[in-house]
Amino acid sequence: MSPKITVELLRQLRQAMKNCKYFSEPIQAYIVPSGDAHQSEYIAPCDCRREFICGFNGSAGTAIVTEQHAAMWTDGRYFLQASQQMDNNWTLMKMGLKETPTQEDWLISVLPENSKVGVDPWIIAADQWTNMSKALTSAGHSLVTVQDNLIDVVWEERPSRPSTPLITLGHEYTGLSWQDKITALRAKMTERKITWFVATALDEIAWLFNLRGSDIEYNPVFFAYAIVGFNTIRLFVDLKRLADPAVRAHLQLDSPSKPELNIQTFPYESVYTELQAICAALGPKDKIWICDKASCALTQVIPKAHRSPIPYTPLCLAKAVKNATEIQGMKMAHIKDAVALCELFAWLEKEIPKGTVTEISAADKAEELRSQQKDFVGLSFPTISSVGPNGAIIHYRPLPETNRTLSMNEVYLIDSGAQYTDGTTDVTRTMHFGTPSAFEKECFTYVLKGHIAVSAAVFPNGTKGHLLDSFARAALWESGLDYLHGTGHGVGCFLNVHEGPCGISYKTFADEPLEAGMIVSDEPGYYEDGSFGIRLENVVLVVPAKTKHNYRNRGSLTFEPLTLVPIQVKMMNTELLTQKERDWVNEYHRRCREVVGAELEKQGRKEALAWLMRETQPIV
Amino acid sequence: MSPKITVELLRQLRQAMKNCKYFSEPIQAYIVPSGDAHQSEYIAPCDCRREFICGFNGSAGTAIVTEQHAAMWTDGRYFLQASQQMDNNWTLMKMGLKETPTQEDWLISVLPENSKVGVDPWIIAADQWTNMSKALTSAGHSLVTVQDNLIDVVWEERPSRPSTPLITLGHEYTGLSWQDKITALRAKMTERKITWFVATALDEIAWLFNLRGSDIEYNPVFFAYAIVGFNTIRLFVDLKRLADPAVRAHLQLDSPSKPELNIQTFPYESVYTELQAICAALGPKDKIWICDKASCALTQVIPKAHRSPIPYTPLCLAKAVKNATEIQGMKMAHIKDAVALCELFAWLEKEIPKGTVTEISAADKAEELRSQQKDFVGLSFPTISSVGPNGAIIHYRPLPETNRTLSMNEVYLIDSGAQYTDGTTDVTRTMHFGTPSAFEKECFTYVLKGHIAVSAAVFPNGTKGHLLDSFARAALWESGLDYLHGTGHGVGCFLNVHEGPCGISYKTFADEPLEAGMIVSDEPGYYEDGSFGIRLENVVLVVPAKTKHNYRNRGSLTFEPLTLVPIQVKMMNTELLTQKERDWVNEYHRRCREVVGAELEKQGRKEALAWLMRETQPIV
Repeated sequence: MSPKITVELLRQLRQAMKNCKYFSEPIQAYIVPSGDAHQSEYIAPCDCRREFICGFNGSAGTAIVTEQHAAMWTDGRYFLQASQQMDNNWTLMKMGLKETPTQEDWLISVLPENSKVGVDPWIIAADQWTNMSKALTSAGHSLVTVQDNLIDVVWEERPSRPSTPLITLGHEYTGLSWQDKITALRAKMTERKITWFVATALDEIAWLFNLRGSDIEYNPVFFAYAIVGFNTIRLFVDLKRLADPAVRAHLQLDSPSKPELNIQTFPYESVYTELQAICAALGPKDKIWICDKASCALTQVIPKAHRSPIPYTPLCLAKAVKNATEIQGMKMAHIKDAVALCELFAWLEKEIPKGTVTEISAADKAEELRSQQKDFVGLSFPTISSVGPNGAIIHYRPLPETNRTLSMNEVYLIDSGAQYTDGTTDVTRTMHFGTPSAFEKECFTYVLKGHIAVSAAVFPNGTKGHLLDSFARAALWESGLDYLHGTGHGVGCFLNVHEGPCGISYKTFADEPLEAGMIVSDEPGYYEDGSFGIRLENVVLVVPAKTKHNYRNRGSLTFEPLTLVPIQVKMMNTELLTQKERDWVNEYHRRCREVVGAELEKQGRKEALAWLMRETQPIV
Repeated sequence: MSPKITVELLRQLRQAMKNCKYFSEPIQAYIVPSGDAHQSEYIAPCDCRREFICGFNGSAGTAIVTEQHAAMWTDGRYFLQASQQMDNNWTLMKMGLKETPTQEDWLISVLPENSKVGVDPWIIAADQWTNMSKALTSAGHSLVTVQDNLIDVVWEERPSRPSTPLITLGHEYTGLSWQDKITALRAKMTERKITWFVATALDEIAWLFNLRGSDIEYNPVFFAYAIVGFNTIRLFVDLKRLADPAVRAHLQLDSPSKPELNIQTFPYESVYTELQAICAALGPKDKIWICDKASCALTQVIPKAHRSPIPYTPLCLAKAVKNATEIQGMKMAHIKDAVALCELFAWLEKEIPKGTVTEISAADKAEELRSQQKDFVGLSFPTISSVGPNGAIIHYRPLPETNRTLSMNEVYLIDSGAQYTDGTTDVTRTMHFGTPSAFEKECFTYVLKGHIAVSAAVFPNGTKGHLLDSFARAALWESGLDYLHGTGHGVGCFLNVHEGPCGISYKTFADEPLEAGMIVSDEPGYYEDGSFGIRLENVVLVVPAKTKHNYRNRGSLTFEPLTLVPIQVKMMNTELLTQKERDWVNEYHRRCREVVGAELEKQGRKEALAWLMRETQPIV
């Protein structure tokens, strides 16, 4: 991986920062956030502005350019990758380390007095705008909106915004019609005395209308906005996409069943003016719900007195709790995914000794095997296929220039997942195809202990996921080890592989309490820089737990693993495991045999079945 | 415990709420917060306004009276107690339960349109004011300041503000002169470009000047404010207290060593006008530090542009990390405290079978035994001495009408502590003097497992205490049990038994990371309403931990128990303990024998020594 050379680009950007064509007064700093106008985590090529300006292509990071400096903030998953992708015009700001200044503090420390800091209001979230603006104002500077995006100004061959065909999902996949989802949303609005709701997150809009697209790689979403009132539903989307008769029928565009379920369609770009028109006609008590992570541009259209910002929208909450149909779909998707992975590992075992398998070819093989499964749509994120030292780059993605050959001497970590029409998967396994060192086994075992501690945890109804994070770390901490990322994220159902509002992280973001039906990942890890990486990830379903007692009738919850792929026993130092942990591993492997074994049998995949049987022998 | 009859009081208060003597327009609701003008947790009798109006005398709670309703919010520690102390004019609002509305939501649901909600600006914290005001304004109401406190208006025989003699503490107790503390504070101010600091918390002022008082029962503090600039130190206190030559010499009032260490003294009440005068003379860039929990009245004196509110002051942070002298003092205090408790338990064992010991007489005996120890000053909080069902009232305090006799058939819980000139103690033990039931033992053992899980936890430097809270609950959760309070609080050194900014709680308040030298309590519990209460509390010191590895050189921390009082083995179901947990108990009891045994020997307290030796026999 060689860094992107940014001397000339930065020169051009700094010129634009002084060019009065774009603003009345020059700006002294320009912020380039990571997201698009929908605050998506994964973004379309046309929105990869931060990558364009600094070279770093991880999923999270903010670049700030001043007249003298250029700095980029990212979190522990990306420290190594970012340091390799950026040239020395850039300072890497390692978030989460004590010595790293916040963006605000850094700006205040480097800016001359009374500076103006610019940002594109469409790609900064309203809450971030507020915080940043407050901090800068209190130090005598100001945060200003720049309508023309200055990266676009210097980006000569910027791709155009995608507009892929829409897929309609029937009841057998969603369990709930879009009409019922609209009705439930309106009931929440009534309950909270809200007259309008503005949906800006792409996965929420896809979920609400039971539609999918492929505008953004890995995420089956499409560029759109929606505004829902009590008598109207307005959908903002490239209108060409609605020519498809299947889509028109699905949305009942030509023959709405009831007037209040009549969807009015508008061009994607007109959301701003339509929202302005709605706001101009508001009654004195009317309130509009908008996520506080929505774009500053759209949020500020709504007069403050009518704005009711919320950390998570009712759609986000409803989407997180999967219904019976969705749970069944997720289970099926994970069984198919496990079939593909068992085949992959059986194949790797045979091929690695020949010295012909690389990180890239292994990832390709995984994709090929997954694509043979029913209802396969695509990958759910770029496969992390990493050997030895590359495994320590937490969100590594193999590239030709970094591609390493799998060997009998190094740890192999593969974090991968797919989109199937019935569900989304995300699984990480760490394997050794020769003889792991005692230290590698020790670390693997601590990570496994953490994984089990979360997976087997029993906790009261109403518990927030962040309260479980330390369970994943206790064994590592005891030995002086740790990992610099959260333990789990929400997972969508044939939707984004990362979704809110629940998760398991030491960061006490305002996560919502875990509820039966929610689906999250459980993925502790350990990373030895320059040497190896270990991560064990299952997707798990929140389920009611039976307990001996039931304090104040609150009821208890625990997790049921949806991922059913063997965990390599060879990597375990089983002496470090308690009897309870050994029992957990054995029971987990028994389930893998039972469920995935049956499917392998059915699909006639004998080699993979033999591998599964061998890898799931009970430990004693 | 019979409830306070409040019909007449509420009538008078509601009359005052309509009396235009106090404001230009009548108010529709009046908020009565718990604290005094310093946001103290424990308060002087003259400040017990919330207790006066509703009868509930726990340490935390907010009362709100409207024309039709009266409601009082408190947390899980106090649900039972509050329900017993308040008459049915009051609605108990159980904080932390899902169905309980916030004060803001409740007000909005009961108030007529455009209501005015009044509060005394001196006893509401600035941050609470801001949040409450925002919520009310957004619903069309307004929060207004009422200069005359309306409770004082209806409180006929309100006590006067205390003004007790001041005690000076020398270097042998503090390890750091007040001059050095001022210098360190100014260094922090320079670092953050702050020109003034306003100290409003009584324990911070006592700590800063190495002075103690006894204005508030249990807390060795005195009513004062302090304002520190670079060339001036202003102390606001009842000036009569400064007549004492020892105090004058300690503060160098008559012969300051350097001009910048010259303390100017002012009457307590003049803080408002002095701060106004300071603010009138500020330069354009001058910034004033004030805690965001300081009173709204004082905070609003400072123009917004000059106000730099902070969640924890530099004094709060400095005070939390104890120096070597303070740690040594805390250790000595805990040894003396253990001597008294060993004596108490040996005495109880003899006396209980006679049927003559009550909750109150046991508490009195504990105080008597503590008072025999060197440098004893008083109790650090009201002793919780509770038998059987009373033990389930988390912050119970025995009163003649609730006083129960200790017996061989019920669990006894005693949570008590003292102020010694060298340190502050806080310890809870739960004992059975007959034969505990299997369920009592089971619950005790889960609580013990939680206590050990926190006490033995190893975690990286920089970890916040709230990340450890779930360790204390895991064993209870697994059986469907829990407790509705935090796990630990900071403990002062001959200061408040509860202090910030560190703690161990599921509430993710902005706690500061744990550091070596901090002192917190570790006190999980279990409460079976109407039957028994269990809590096990040690005060523990944060110390560096030796670990096998050291990830990124961050270093690790763990806890060292300062409390050295045996934990009753009879209450344990040792089969539920792991070998590691048994080892922890045995090692803890070995330390008790070694350290407290030696002191009991030295003090010639033979019966207690025999009791200690018997109670600390290793379990197998």
